Amino acid sequence: MTLPKQRTAALIIIGNEILSGRTQDKNLAYVATFLNQHGIRLMESRMILDDFDEIIEAVNTLRKRYDFVITTGGIGPTHDDITPEAIARAFGVPYEYHPESVIELKKHYTPEMLNEARMKMAKMPRGARLIRTPLSGAPAFAYENVYILAGVPKIMQSMLDSVKEEFGSGPSLLSRSITCLLPEGNVAEGLTKIQENHPHLEIGSYPFSREGIWGTVLVTRGFSYPEIDKACDEIKTMVTSLGGQLIEEQNIHENCPYH
Amino acid sequence: MTLPKQRTAALIIIGNEILSGRTQDKNLAYVATFLNQHGIRLMESRMILDDFDEIIEAVNTLRKRYDFVITTGGIGPTHDDITPEAIARAFGVPYEYHPESVIELKKHYTPEMLNEARMKMAKMPRGARLIRTPLSGAPAFAYENVYILAGVPKIMQSMLDSVKEEFGSGPSLLSRSITCLLPEGNVAEGLTKIQENHPHLEIGSYPFSREGIWGTVLVTRGFSYPEIDKACDEIKTMVTSLGGQLIEEQNIHENCPYH
Repeated sequence: MTLPKQRTAALIIIGNEILSGRTQDKNLAYVATFLNQHGIRLMESRMILDDFDEIIEAVNTLRKRYDFVITTGGIGPTHDDITPEAIARAFGVPYEYHPESVIELKKHYTPEMLNEARMKMAKMPRGARLIRTPLSGAPAFAYENVYILAGVPKIMQSMLDSVKEEFGSGPSLLSRSITCLLPEGNVAEGLTKIQENHPHLEIGSYPFSREGIWGTVLVTRGFSYPEIDKACDEIKTMVTSLGGQLIEEQNIHENCPYH
Repeated sequence: MTLPKQRTAALIIIGNEILSGRTQDKNLAYVATFLNQHGIRLMESRMILDDFDEIIEAVNTLRKRYDFVITTGGIGPTHDDITPEAIARAFGVPYEYHPESVIELKKHYTPEMLNEARMKMAKMPRGARLIRTPLSGAPAFAYENVYILAGVPKIMQSMLDSVKEEFGSGPSLLSRSITCLLPEGNVAEGLTKIQENHPHLEIGSYPFSREGIWGTVLVTRGFSYPEIDKACDEIKTMVTSLGGQLIEEQNIHENCPYH
């Protein structure tokens, strides 16, 4: 499986509530799709605790390895929101009030509302680039290739939208899926051959069970519709020759380009 | 926030379909709860591609850092199922047919079904401990402190259940949550003081918005009901004194111990 080179990214999901299982992450799928629209592939995601050492290590490892790093969570006013200070430590720069962010907070909140806890949200690494959203007073920011965003999905999405130009453009990974009522073990050998015929495509196989019957979703990913379609035709021929039923076919890229 | 020391674990979720956003992971919450029932804390989770280098690096880093490592995904019969071979390489041992696993597969499948692709599922690192489940012919295994499980949730759960004794026992983290209709910025200062009063508890604050109104869920975690209840009483008093409405209270530990 060798796809043409794309720019790369990692996502760091920060928060004890994610690792306890209390909160189901909803940001990964959105970020993956956003990145793919810009021609960037999400290579890995780490979910870590609200802990200085963990955040610093993850950020410093991943920002050197990938073109972009996005973090979600931990930028609010409470004691467990430590992401901005951890980012300052990761880059070895002072953690201090950002002058523009202070002005923004003063616009967003009345003087009675703007207590010390809310003022903390204006503190970030010296030299951070502000990321604004009309939905919240909590400011996000970027530092070099790291984007520090909120954990609440709607706000995170609005923040990402407001800096989308920084992610540039490139070819999106396209995909098409075929669902058949054959267990994975039946299609495996034929699928290996089809994968070998198409080294520039990535063919994934995902088993499922519905009412006791095993089936498999076969997803073909690549950068060229004609080549994807060719591989899908071969997959359909194989499924039929094995006596398998084709129950669904989807050009995923039409709605959501990266799947 | 200094909680008493627990044993620790990491979860590695393997699969291109997770990072593309195609498949929403459903294993993390289950694994977190299972671990907590055994007195083990999930410290981090990594989602990585079906790629030898990525799997080897993640496994070798995390198995040294934590007491337990669990992986999900990539143990089936198709070409993109490379986890067992990657685990063998991570430990530097041969990847070969496991004699007991071959016997199990021959029991599970008819001779016509047991093709070369399915036989591949019996290959694992030399010296692996088999993990059996009645739900699937796909064998899971453990190697030292690493547990290599299926990605399909029902099967993963059954596999985990069949080796639960290996995870021993210890005190579970308990928690209680209070939901109030005050934005996070209003409760932040009071909450910091309550956290300082209770260094053996971990108090988390999670904002939400319902029909345009901001509220906050305040989760107190610890190992002693009386101390958790004391902190929760202080939180309720604070919310009331700020004019906030308490809308919900939940002893999460009664249904699901770790949240």
